Amino acid sequence: MAQPNSELTIRPARESDTGAIWEILEPIIRAGEVFAIPREISQEDAIASWTGNDRKTFVAIFEGQIVGTYYLRTNQAGGGSHVTNCGYATSTKARGRGVARQMCLHSLELARSSGFKAMQFNFVVSTNEVAVRLWKALGFEVVGILPGAFAHPGIGYVDALVMFQKL
Amino acid sequence: MAQPNSELTIRPARESDTGAIWEILEPIIRAGEVFAIPREISQEDAIASWTGNDRKTFVAIFEGQIVGTYYLRTNQAGGGSHVTNCGYATSTKARGRGVARQMCLHSLELARSSGFKAMQFNFVVSTNEVAVRLWKALGFEVVGILPGAFAHPGIGYVDALVMFQKL
Repeated sequence: MAQPNSELTIRPARESDTGAIWEILEPIIRAGEVFAIPREISQEDAIASWTGNDRKTFVAIFEGQIVGTYYLRTNQAGGGSHVTNCGYATSTKARGRGVARQMCLHSLELARSSGFKAMQFNFVVSTNEVAVRLWKALGFEVVGILPGAFAHPGIGYVDALVMFQKL
Repeated sequence: MAQPNSELTIRPARESDTGAIWEILEPIIRAGEVFAIPREISQEDAIASWTGNDRKTFVAIFEGQIVGTYYLRTNQAGGGSHVTNCGYATSTKARGRGVARQMCLHSLELARSSGFKAMQFNFVVSTNEVAVRLWKALGFEVVGILPGAFAHPGIGYVDALVMFQKL
């Protein structure tokens, strides 16, 4: 049976988590295969964006280590503000342990309890098959296909998906 | 035959155009039927966004009056930066004169000459039928439908469309 300390804990990010968040984001951003974020972005700009005032940012902790991080924000203002948007990142060292799944479930619960009526992912790179499969398993549908909208460093232009789930 | 001064001129927006741009935007934003912008936004915030450093903003002039404005920006950063995004607004006093069509054609030409490979509209309110028809006539396809993603003040939740055109 799993011990309490081998379970994943998710809590709001703190100022002191910045270094750990950057350790997770940096290799993913530098590889440039899944996020529409400039590959050469500075740590300062990346952290400012990921933990900005327009969103709530969380960290996922496993055995005392920060192994994942996600944010939740309003996707569109005004008449679009009942739809939320999230971004997730899992440490390359902690893949395959259900970290992204737990973070997404956490975000869906937070979104519901915050009164959001839907969650939208604006730009899921289609070659990120693990993510696409996971989001589908968690109730998201592909509602849009953006043809060739992402320049993958290894493959070239690939589609990006718009995924959506009513809450 | 049309006189030169009865044709539409489109040029980059200047600091001194701010008042005229706000005169166009204010009634559209306050009505809240087509833009995902807070209805109660201040003039300062609206102008800061519409003419921000992340975009190029233009005005359309007819018979000496600013009758329309649009912006062009990069839609997504990093691997998504070959796709541009625009927003257009026509004065309520100048509807039906092809102002939006001329602005869109101008933006498509600018996008091509700037090296963008596609143009994407992220959030076209489906009940904005004049716009949807015009964008289709100008080559855009609906590549995504966001179910109930816009709270229309008169109708309730309506779909928003993702429209896309390769350049």
